This record gives sequence, C-alpha cells and structure tokens, in this order.
Amino acid sequence: MHTGRTYEAFSREHKMLIETEIVAYVRAIQAPAILKEAMIYSLEAGGKRIRPLLVFAVLAAFGKDTRLGISAAAAIEMIHTYSLIHDDLPSMDDDDLRRGKPTNHKVYGEANAILSGDALLTYSFQVIAESTNPEISPEMKVELVSELAKAAGAEGMVGGQTADIEGENKQLSLKDLEYIHEHKTGRLLSVSILSGAIVAGANEEQRRYLLQFSRHLGLAFQIRDDILDIEGTEEVIGKPVGSDSSNHKTTYPSLLTLEGAKLKLQEHIGSALRQLEETNLDTALLKEITNLIAARNH
Amino acid sequence: MHTGRTYEAFSREHKMLIETEIVAYVRAIQAPAILKEAMIYSLEAGGKRIRPLLVFAVLAAFGKDTRLGISAAAAIEMIHTYSLIHDDLPSMDDDDLRRGKPTNHKVYGEANAILSGDALLTYSFQVIAESTNPEISPEMKVELVSELAKAAGAEGMVGGQTADIEGENKQLSLKDLEYIHEHKTGRLLSVSILSGAIVAGANEEQRRYLLQFSRHLGLAFQIRDDILDIEGTEEVIGKPVGSDSSNHKTTYPSLLTLEGAKLKLQEHIGSALRQLEETNLDTALLKEITNLIAARNH
Repeated sequence: MHTGRTYEAFSREHKMLIETEIVAYVRAIQAPAILKEAMIYSLEAGGKRIRPLLVFAVLAAFGKDTRLGISAAAAIEMIHTYSLIHDDLPSMDDDDLRRGKPTNHKVYGEANAILSGDALLTYSFQVIAESTNPEISPEMKVELVSELAKAAGAEGMVGGQTADIEGENKQLSLKDLEYIHEHKTGRLLSVSILSGAIVAGANEEQRRYLLQFSRHLGLAFQIRDDILDIEGTEEVIGKPVGSDSSNHKTTYPSLLTLEGAKLKLQEHIGSALRQLEETNLDTALLKEITNLIAARNH
Repeated sequence: MHTGRTYEAFSREHKMLIETEIVAYVRAIQAPAILKEAMIYSLEAGGKRIRPLLVFAVLAAFGKDTRLGISAAAAIEMIHTYSLIHDDLPSMDDDDLRRGKPTNHKVYGEANAILSGDALLTYSFQVIAESTNPEISPEMKVELVSELAKAAGAEGMVGGQTADIEGENKQLSLKDLEYIHEHKTGRLLSVSILSGAIVAGANEEQRRYLLQFSRHLGLAFQIRDDILDIEGTEEVIGKPVGSDSSNHKTTYPSLLTLEGAKLKLQEHIGSALRQLEETNLDTALLKEITNLIAARNH
C-alpha cells in the first residue's frame, strides 16, 4: 500500500504540517520580539525534519492519526534546533554557516543565541505538558517528558556533545566514537521513535523492537554523515566539505577506511530493517525513511 | 507555634535536605565526569536556597509533609543554578565571581559551562517527571512541568534576561524595570510558591492569594538586591559593590532615589504580608521568610 510515491506525499505533507505548527507555537508566546525572532529564525532554517517524520511514521505504522504526534514532534524538533544553535557557538564548534545560512549567533549575537536555545529547550517540555489532545493522557505526558529529558540531557545528547568536545584532537577508538554518536545524535532519533510508540500505545515487545531499530538507524545516520563529509559537495550539504578532518575529528572513515565505513553503514541498515520486520506493524514508511538515510546526499 | 527559633531550625534542616538531595540527583546520572563535576560545582556553590525554602514553607503552611516538595524544590534550584551559569558567561554579564567563587566558565571553560547549564535545565523536568512519591499524581506532575517551563522560559526568566540585556546602557522607565524583574527573578520565586501549592492540593482561592503574595515578594527581593548593590560590602554579597551602576544599569534607587526605593520595598513587604493573612493558612514560616528578605544583607 505504501509505495515510494505514498512516502513522498506523506513526507511532504507532514514536513509542511510540522513546519507550520512549530512556528505557530512560538508565535503564541508573549516574549521580547528579538527572542521570538531568534527562535523562529533557527526553526525556519530548514532541514530534513527527520525526527518529526519518524514520530509521524511510527503513528502511521500503528494505523493511528498522525496528528496525535504533533506536540511530541514539535518538542523534539525544538530540542534538535536548540542543540544546533548552542553547538554552533564560538566556544563550541564555532560555525558561521548552518544549512547554508548564517548561524544564529552570527545574526543575533552570542547572548541572544544562548538565550533562544535555552528558551526552545524549556518550551519543548511546556508544549508536551500543554497538549490538549484528549487521547494523550497525563501518564503519557509524564513518560514523554521523562524520556525526552533523558535523551536530550546529560545522559543523552548533552553528554554526547561533552564527550565529542573532550575527544577533539584525540585518536578515539571505535567504542569511544560509538558512545559519542549514540548519545550526541542517536538518543534524539531514538526518542522520536519511542515518542511515537508512547502516544500510539505500543506494547512492551513492540517498543523493544522499535528501540533496536532506532539504535541501528541512528548509527547508520551518523556513518552516512561522516561519509558525506568526504564525498559530499559544499553546495548540497550546506557546510564546508572535509570540515571534520580539518578539525582533526575521529570519524568512521578515519577508523575503518571509506570502504569499511560503507560496509558498516549497510550492516546497520540491514539490522534496522530486520527489526522492523519483527514488529508486525505496517512499517512501509519507516523502511522508506531507513533506505533514504542510507542513500541521502545531504 | 512557629516562632523565630522554629524558623531557624526549619530553614537549617531544609537547606541541608535540599543540598543533599540535589547533589544526589546529579551523582546518579551516567554522564561524562567533567559534565557532572561542572553541574555539581555550581549546585554546591552555596546561596540562600530561598526557592526550595519557599516550596517547603508553603507545604508547612498547609500542614503537609515537606518531603512532598523535594522534587519540585530540586528542579527549581537546578533551573536557578543553570540561569546563573549562563548569565555569568562572557557574552552575557561576563562575571568572574559568583558567591565569592570563580564562575563556572572560569573553572570549566565556556563550552562546559554552557553544556552544564543545558544539562541542569533539562534534568529539572526529568526530576519532576520521575518523582516516585505516590502522593504526586501524573496530573500534578504535568501541571508542575507546565508552570515551571512557563516561569523559566521565554515568557518568564529567559524573556526577562533578554529584556535586561536589551535594556543595558538605556534609561528605563519604572514599568520597563518591573517587567525585567518580574520576569528575570520574580517568575521563578512565584513558581516556587505555586509548586508548593500544587503538591499541597491548594484550592483556587488559596492559589490566588499565594500568587499575589509571591508577586510582591519577588519585587521586594529585587529592590533589596538593588539597595544592597549600593549599601552592601563586597565581602558579604560576594560580588563587587556598585557593579550595577558601573554597568550603567537602571535600578530602583537610580529611578526612585535610595530613600524612595526603601519605601517601595516596605510597601511590597506590607502587601505581601497582607495577602498571606487572607489565605487562612499557618503562614508563620512564610512571614518569617518575607521579613528576612526585607532585611537580608546578602
């Protein structure tokens, strides 16, 4: 039923949905104009919206109305956006460009960039708590807040970013590199899938398979990122090609060779797809996203 | 029943309780050592713990077990601590000292200071969501998350900090100044009182009086801060005296004269105490805190 053409329609429609919703959430805030403007600037800076699409695709796999996932998807995209704003700061990765546009602090200054990141992070939890969808129970909201905080905080993304900075200019082992990526990018991808499962009312077994799926998907995503840093073009990926190696970062290709990294990518994609089979759900859209991640060129 | 002596015992006991609990919360995290260390450094940097004490004092006013307030009190103190770490950054207030100790970024560097603030903010919501006290219902947790996020985010503290930075080197009106302080410091004091009321199961009327009380208390707190900046000694307040006027900040004394600011302080203290009378609760401890705020010398 879900052919490639269906996926394209699904993706286009839900990307538009979430892009409209996240900006509407921020416009509704009573706050100094410069703060709202800085928040919206980065939310509107584009991107694949892969995390919201994962929330929606999980709901579709359960045959549920995808609108059930709007608050969780918006919250996760806000957290992803805040993390990009803070990671780009001069004292962190010191990036001037993000998706081909000047980074937040280049436009609004460092203080406003830090504050707009803080505000997006804080708002993400409010958006979940204040969801008015009657099918999302207080118990579900509490679980969403807890899982999202674990994935985004010291035990997740922030921990991964700390380890990433600590690891700069050091030769890391494959284990160190996997720790960084599972935390820095993997946990937020996983919680996207888990959030969809929570609001869909998934049982324990379905959650377990989906979590295994998300782990392989996350690693595949990062390996593809490292490969793109070597093979991509600046125009397509929106940042200077080869910036990882000029930053002396350990990457999958630097540890495994480019061919080895490509093999590893295929392994994780294969494992991810096998876990999806086990769920006995209508996972056509999730498979499509998985294959796109393996093949994406930005 | 609650004499001054009782307040001293209450305050000492609950300060020790919250200082033990917040550090135990962070020690339980699985995260890079440097990140946990930076988080704990600022949590342990001292302070009056006025926000946790307010949570506990509200529970005492309702005759409830104060341990009901531990998760909310810890969450609020984490948010207060994160805000100090970020406010002290070079791109914000650029402070080297906080409570007489080097600021977080002076010890751990800017990147770790930003990340430890992000981690504390994120963890605060997790601490509330994961509270295991059976008397705190999912509905209460959802309300705590929502109110805490509103008080801490763009509509509250972060909005106030943005307006404060925008207002530097400008002559502000009393209305502008009140906006800044009600948001930058007032909202987090208010939500401390509201959080106590939520877990105590306060009714609408009690909440309304307590919120009015908290508004006057917050403004009194800030006016006293401005007066201390002129009259205090560096040794007692832990930062250079007169730093507001050398930063060209508008303050209550600069708008109202020192005498006028002192009158305004007494007005707010009087209104705060009158609102407490209206609650018909055992507010002896809350009155004690209010009077201490009027008289505090650090």
